[in-house]
Amino acid sequence: METMDWATTSTSPGRRESPWERRALTISSPTSSPLFTRGRPRRGITSILGGSDILRVSCGWIYRGRRPTVTVELRLIGIRTPLIRPGDHLPSLLLKALRRAGGVREGDILVLSSKVVAVSQGRMVRLSEVRPSPRALRLSRKTGLDPSFVEVVLREADSVLGASRGALLTLVKGLPCANAGVDLSNAPPGHAILLPSHPERFAKELRDYVRREEGVRVGVILADSTVKPLRLGTVGQAVGISGVPGALDCRGRTDLFGRRLRVTRRALADQLATAAELLMGEAGERIPLVVVRGLRLEGKAVPSPAVEPEECLYFSLLKGGLRKDRRRL
Amino acid sequence: METMDWATTSTSPGRRESPWERRALTISSPTSSPLFTRGRPRRGITSILGGSDILRVSCGWIYRGRRPTVTVELRLIGIRTPLIRPGDHLPSLLLKALRRAGGVREGDILVLSSKVVAVSQGRMVRLSEVRPSPRALRLSRKTGLDPSFVEVVLREADSVLGASRGALLTLVKGLPCANAGVDLSNAPPGHAILLPSHPERFAKELRDYVRREEGVRVGVILADSTVKPLRLGTVGQAVGISGVPGALDCRGRTDLFGRRLRVTRRALADQLATAAELLMGEAGERIPLVVVRGLRLEGKAVPSPAVEPEECLYFSLLKGGLRKDRRRL
Repeated sequence: METMDWATTSTSPGRRESPWERRALTISSPTSSPLFTRGRPRRGITSILGGSDILRVSCGWIYRGRRPTVTVELRLIGIRTPLIRPGDHLPSLLLKALRRAGGVREGDILVLSSKVVAVSQGRMVRLSEVRPSPRALRLSRKTGLDPSFVEVVLREADSVLGASRGALLTLVKGLPCANAGVDLSNAPPGHAILLPSHPERFAKELRDYVRREEGVRVGVILADSTVKPLRLGTVGQAVGISGVPGALDCRGRTDLFGRRLRVTRRALADQLATAAELLMGEAGERIPLVVVRGLRLEGKAVPSPAVEPEECLYFSLLKGGLRKDRRRL
Repeated sequence: METMDWATTSTSPGRRESPWERRALTISSPTSSPLFTRGRPRRGITSILGGSDILRVSCGWIYRGRRPTVTVELRLIGIRTPLIRPGDHLPSLLLKALRRAGGVREGDILVLSSKVVAVSQGRMVRLSEVRPSPRALRLSRKTGLDPSFVEVVLREADSVLGASRGALLTLVKGLPCANAGVDLSNAPPGHAILLPSHPERFAKELRDYVRREEGVRVGVILADSTVKPLRLGTVGQAVGISGVPGALDCRGRTDLFGRRLRVTRRALADQLATAAELLMGEAGERIPLVVVRGLRLEGKAVPSPAVEPEECLYFSLLKGGLRKDRRRL
């Protein structure tokens, strides 16, 4: 978010009028991402020099008003869908809803609630059929949660990192999740909804389906809620990604003064999941799909947003907590 | 993000056609927020019953296509600004840029990079004038960061929670920040930019200025970058808020089955800061301001996104880490 400028000491004066128009674009494999296509820049599409290739960004930039103010716009379009039931063919239901809302375009990113994917997969548990273990009973007293619900959480979680009133902090396939992503809200009475199985595979399936049916390339993100340390409330987290980088590595790029950026990576997929949550809402809204239109990407694509332990600022703390937790819980 | 629906077992069939149109809205003090105004609903503005009052949401909902698909749209408009220098009157510079980009509207939320606020306040340090302490030298070896930079971080941080290659995890006024929000990128050569002083006060100043000059009520968020546990890259975090809830508490609301939601709070301000980062970029882009237009809010407004320790899932882990850190560093 270093968007600061500095006129008097700038070492790259030529950049000042419109720095983002001539920005060098580097991406490891342009053809693997639907958001970038190789070729000659066409009229109306901003061309960007990237090494020896000419790349073009397939999503446009919107110019308004007079220079030097140039506007870049992103649209988030919430798509209301019919009811989703177990066994539904979700890609075709979603595409129908997208068509009714004006269609899908090349370069769109579809952010989808992981909950509807889980429901279409039948990933639900009837709580009355779950017998809580002694550990679940202990954690139920500690958290105030229903023992059967805690048992489901323990079965879904790879490890439990901590507990507070109303929630367990868990790891599921490397993802930090409250209650292992298990959710009672908007589930049928007496049921809990789990995280979807094979979220990456579903994301790719939806992407391929849209490509086949509509002839456009989109990115797909399956989004779930998570919590952050010392902050109230939930933000979004990508639990499945296809056709869009998990993160963007801007370390090779230079700032306004020509210096190479050091630790400058953007959690793109989580940013998109979080932005989409602004429309999805938390209660009974039926907006499980958000189209993100107009995104421009710069930087080197990093496929996965998972972090190497030695690069995680919280890791040493979590490690300690994990050990402590294993003793205590 | 529980956007799931369930037709066959629904206990609130009347809601199914258009649940979000008749949703009860509760907000603790409607007059304190520019996004809500009391009064009779006007044509084109969706009315919502909230207790005994009629409240109306001043930002519209967009309907497209035929039912049952109804679209809700959010626009994120990146505003390019001239160069910001220390001593600049930032509110007037920003308003000029906003006018050139088409103006500001009632209910808009202005998300502003905290960096430009810091620069306009002159919150920068020349690193050659900083003498690193022995602790800074120790942490410099551990992180690979410049000793003078580490010294500035230590002066800005209330506490250091952990260290990894390239960054220190710190707390600044209760906010978890990498390197105490101190930044070298896009700073004048040899300088570091700090977090702004009195971010809440500046947010209110900008909000009042827009109200006075344009006659419209907006919300303002000062955004900075932060990192999340076990995830690569940065997301946004609100470091100053005015006229928009820090979080939304949806616990009193009911889901599609009429049950009260339990732990369902949305980190609204952080969500907005993160969404805006999609346009702000991380390198030399000069887009320090993003207008969020079309947001609808439901739930009880929580002014601050800071969390009570006993409600933070990570707290017990951080506490342990903090103690360990105090011994070790």
